[in-house]
Amino acid sequence: MNTDLQDYSHKRLNILTGEWVLVSPHRAKRPWQGQNEAVSNEKRPTYDETCYLCAGNTRINGEVNPNYEDVFVFTNDFAALQSDSKTFLVEDGLMKAQSETGICKVICFSPDHSKSLAHMNPNEIQKVVFAWQKEFKLLAENPDINYVQIFENKGAVMGCSNPHPHGQIWSQSTLPNEVDKKNTQQAKYYKANKSSLLGDYLAQELEKNERIIFQNNDFVVLVPFWAIWPFEAMIVPKAVQANILAMSDEQALNFAEAISVLTKAYDKLFNTSFPYSSGIHQAPTDGEANGHWHWHMSFYPPLLRSATVKKFMVGYEMFGSPQRDITAETAVKMLRELL
Amino acid sequence: MNTDLQDYSHKRLNILTGEWVLVSPHRAKRPWQGQNEAVSNEKRPTYDETCYLCAGNTRINGEVNPNYEDVFVFTNDFAALQSDSKTFLVEDGLMKAQSETGICKVICFSPDHSKSLAHMNPNEIQKVVFAWQKEFKLLAENPDINYVQIFENKGAVMGCSNPHPHGQIWSQSTLPNEVDKKNTQQAKYYKANKSSLLGDYLAQELEKNERIIFQNNDFVVLVPFWAIWPFEAMIVPKAVQANILAMSDEQALNFAEAISVLTKAYDKLFNTSFPYSSGIHQAPTDGEANGHWHWHMSFYPPLLRSATVKKFMVGYEMFGSPQRDITAETAVKMLRELL
Ligand SMILES: O=P(O)(O)O[C@H]1O[C@H](CO)[C@@H](O)[C@H](O)[C@H]1O
Ligand SMILES: O=P(O)(O)O[C@H]1O[C@H](CO)[C@@H](O)[C@H](O)[C@H]1O
Repeated sequence: MNTDLQDYSHKRLNILTGEWVLVSPHRAKRPWQGQNEAVSNEKRPTYDETCYLCAGNTRINGEVNPNYEDVFVFTNDFAALQSDSKTFLVEDGLMKAQSETGICKVICFSPDHSKSLAHMNPNEIQKVVFAWQKEFKLLAENPDINYVQIFENKGAVMGCSNPHPHGQIWSQSTLPNEVDKKNTQQAKYYKANKSSLLGDYLAQELEKNERIIFQNNDFVVLVPFWAIWPFEAMIVPKAVQANILAMSDEQALNFAEAISVLTKAYDKLFNTSFPYSSGIHQAPTDGEANGHWHWHMSFYPPLLRSATVKKFMVGYEMFGSPQRDITAETAVKMLRELL
Repeated sequence: MNTDLQDYSHKRLNILTGEWVLVSPHRAKRPWQGQNEAVSNEKRPTYDETCYLCAGNTRINGEVNPNYEDVFVFTNDFAALQSDSKTFLVEDGLMKAQSETGICKVICFSPDHSKSLAHMNPNEIQKVVFAWQKEFKLLAENPDINYVQIFENKGAVMGCSNPHPHGQIWSQSTLPNEVDKKNTQQAKYYKANKSSLLGDYLAQELEKNERIIFQNNDFVVLVPFWAIWPFEAMIVPKAVQANILAMSDEQALNFAEAISVLTKAYDKLFNTSFPYSSGIHQAPTDGEANGHWHWHMSFYPPLLRSATVKKFMVGYEMFGSPQRDITAETAVKMLRELL
């Protein structure tokens, strides 16, 4: 391992976005006198009559949730994107805007209010993966939808307003910023090398074995070389696949196992229900082949040193570049020990 | 005013970065059941013996702060960037890194522990502006420093670990991501139009007068068309200036007045000491003319609806694009009424 990267401040390139992260390994010793987050380790009941996601309960718009048994999907009652919205274009000198339509859904992972993915076994998580595939397929067939963002906000500190295990799917007509960057970088590499950028990177990581947390037959869980968040991680399929529909049922189970292993390790790290935002980046659903795309799922957890001390992406990070203190390699060592 | 932009979801282009923000005006009605931030409206003493920024107190490294009377600057005791660090380059297949050296400073705005910029008058703030100019000049003359980021994190919710009024200056050898984007966009426009991108935009805004909060002879305070944060604002010099050294003393006073007016309005908005990260983007200090640059100061405040409910930039925002509910125009109306 290159020891300079563990000792001196440096920047690392995110090959998928083309952007840099500033790493300051020596700064991990900084004392913390700032804000502490609230920890909620209270055990939740399996059913909460005030929860609008629990089975049989009535949502704010009057609809009643079915008595679902595993996964339940519905259209977001407060969708940021709507399909019946007006379309228009504004080009007024240096003011440029255009309408954005789309469909936003909520996906409950389990009827059990007390659970999170970390408490579910691979077979249960596989059902969530199947639901993601089904929704993705449905949205991909819609000619007005060109990109589908699957994500989860977990924990109050990540803006999650309901602890019931759930995620979201926002789909829209154009590519969001982050996807656009990854689209460009992967296409550039594919054109020049006729191979997958992430696939080639994965081969290099597997050979080095310095940042791998876990692997099974079909998936690798690793901390990317350019990780921004203290315990950021990525799940990458070994086969080059443009989107999650390319997964066989067996691969879906192995993907579910990877999610299970990672979320369980996270919960052990600071002995708390580990907050994060996770998301799947995959090929646009624009009808093109998108052979340059290699889908992957990333986890961005905010905690830095304990269940109550998070990393703030503020001042310098907002105006300059993301910055981290502990290195990706240190984070991997800590997570590996918890498997 | 284009009413479609107030009624339907759309995206707006940030001409300075080339990136988009998703705007969902209809979504402001969403009820909030998530995390509430702690408000601290307790009056602080003018001197706190445990504060490492108060005059006469001893810092963690044993150094004693002088009995300063207005502004006091020192090198950060836990600097993310160091000038005596090793330099190196890593190019190992798809893993790319390079050392980053720099100088990080802390700048106390006042010896009075109880104050913030919102409590200081323009003459007092002008001294802060003079200190920024002095530090910028010093760092710009250093051949190893090619960019100087001046910023402030205000409030515990913005990761500020000490309420004593202070900001920071991180300077380094290469351009951070955000500055790099603005450098590229401004250079492109300047090459094509032989005029300042931000200057031309400002002229358009002044003519429309829909997003202007305040102006004096030399500065305009506005909510940019592409604002991300609910009450984001920008202070722009009317004259095209590459960096803050171009300001005359009189202009520095008008800049101070703009800061004063904006921060006072912010505090009134939710009747709380308004948290934010602010920062000055200006030309690189690489020895080039950088005639395409038009410096400006931006404020990114997290609060959305009250002193305790903030906007979370999570899931979709991290994996897709930033998203906002209330429009820039609505935010301006609310802020204007508080002047
Ligand atoms: O340097 P401070 O104030 O201790 O730290 C704060 O500002 C820094 C620069 O924006 C961030 O990197 C830290 O995460 C934040 O807590
Ligand atoms: O849709 P929710 O869970 O109510 O809201 C949460 O996730 C959204 C998508 O990431 C964000 O825009 C909101 O700021 C956040 O609070």
